Amino acid sequence: MDETLLRMLDFLQEIEKLKAVTRRNLTLDGGRLENSAEHSWSVSMMAITLHEYLPENTDLIRVIKMLLIHDIVEIDAGDIYLYDDRKRRAAVEKEKAAADRIFSLLPENLRKEFTELWQEFDARETVDAKSAAAMDTLHPLINNNVTGRKKPVPMTCSQVLEKRQIIREVSDELWQLTWHLMEKGVEKGLFRED
Amino acid sequence: MDETLLRMLDFLQEIEKLKAVTRRNLTLDGGRLENSAEHSWSVSMMAITLHEYLPENTDLIRVIKMLLIHDIVEIDAGDIYLYDDRKRRAAVEKEKAAADRIFSLLPENLRKEFTELWQEFDARETVDAKSAAAMDTLHPLINNNVTGRKKPVPMTCSQVLEKRQIIREVSDELWQLTWHLMEKGVEKGLFRED
Repeated sequence: MDETLLRMLDFLQEIEKLKAVTRRNLTLDGGRLENSAEHSWSVSMMAITLHEYLPENTDLIRVIKMLLIHDIVEIDAGDIYLYDDRKRRAAVEKEKAAADRIFSLLPENLRKEFTELWQEFDARETVDAKSAAAMDTLHPLINNNVTGRKKPVPMTCSQVLEKRQIIREVSDELWQLTWHLMEKGVEKGLFRED
Repeated sequence: MDETLLRMLDFLQEIEKLKAVTRRNLTLDGGRLENSAEHSWSVSMMAITLHEYLPENTDLIRVIKMLLIHDIVEIDAGDIYLYDDRKRRAAVEKEKAAADRIFSLLPENLRKEFTELWQEFDARETVDAKSAAAMDTLHPLINNNVTGRKKPVPMTCSQVLEKRQIIREVSDELWQLTWHLMEKGVEKGLFRED
C-alpha cells in the first residue's frame, strides 16, 4: 500500500471523532445535541446556497475547504460556545496543539494546506475567511429558528448581533437576514430585547 | 427582506432534517447511528483529502457540491442500505419526488443546479459523478474500520467489492485502499471470506 495514502487514511479515521463533539444547538430528532461534523455540513451547504450573496472575489472552493475543516481542532479542544469569550481565549493554545497533532497525520503537502486554511479561517482577515466565518456564525440562528432551542436566560439582541459583525462586513443582504432571524427569535422567546 | 434570500432560508431550514435520517453505520460516541448529514461531511472531507488520487480532469468543486447534496432526497425517501437492491429499485420514484419537492424550495437557478448535480451523481456516468460515488461507497469501510461495527451475518468479500466497482473505475490506488480496508475488516470479523 502507498504510504501517502495510508497517512490520509489515518487522518480520515481520526476525524470520525468530530461526530462525537457536541455543540449547544439541538437537532430535530428529539432534541439531540448537534455535533460539529453535521454543523460543518450545514455551513458548507450554506456556502454553496448563499454564494451569490458573498463578495464577488470570494473563492468558493477555499471557503468550503475552510468550513469543512474549521472545527476539526475541537476533537482535542472541544467546542466553545459562541458567547463564552473567556473559554475562547483560554483555548487558543489547545487549538493550535490540536491542529499540529491532527493535521500532522497527513502527508506534508496536505498538512501545510489544511493548517494554513485553518489559520486563515481563525484570523478572519481575508475575504474567504470572512465569508466562511459569516456562514459559521449565521448557522446557529437558522438552526435555532427550526429547533426552537430555548435557554434558561436568552441572549439579548445586542449579544446576538455583536457576535455576528463579520456578517455585516461580508454582505448587506446577509446582515438583513441576520436581523430577520433575530427578530423571529425574539417572537419565539429565543432571544430577548435589550 | 429579499424574496430570493427567503427562499434560500426555507431550503436551509428544511435540510436541517437530514440530521435526523440515520444510516447503518455507527459513530464513536457510544454506538449512536450515523446520520446522513455527518456522512455527507465525511465524504466531502474525503474528496478534499484524496483529491490527488482522483482522475486528473475531476472538477473538485462539482464533486464536493454533489457530495454535500447527494443525500438530501433521503429527508423524504430515507436512507437505503448499500446492499439492499430491492429497496433501492423501489425508491427511485420516491427519491425523484423528494428532489422535486426539496430543491423547488430554492430560487430557479439553484433549483436547476442542485437538481442536475443530484441527477448527475445518481447516474454515475461523468468523471465527477464517478469520483463522488467512489467517496460515497468507500466511506463506510473507513467508518467500519474505526467503529468496529459488526453485523449478525457479515457481508462476504465478494459483496463488499461488488458494491464498490466504481472505485476501481476511478483509481487504482483507491481500489488498493478498498482491498486493504476489506482485508482489515476480515481480520476484525466485520466481513467474511466467500
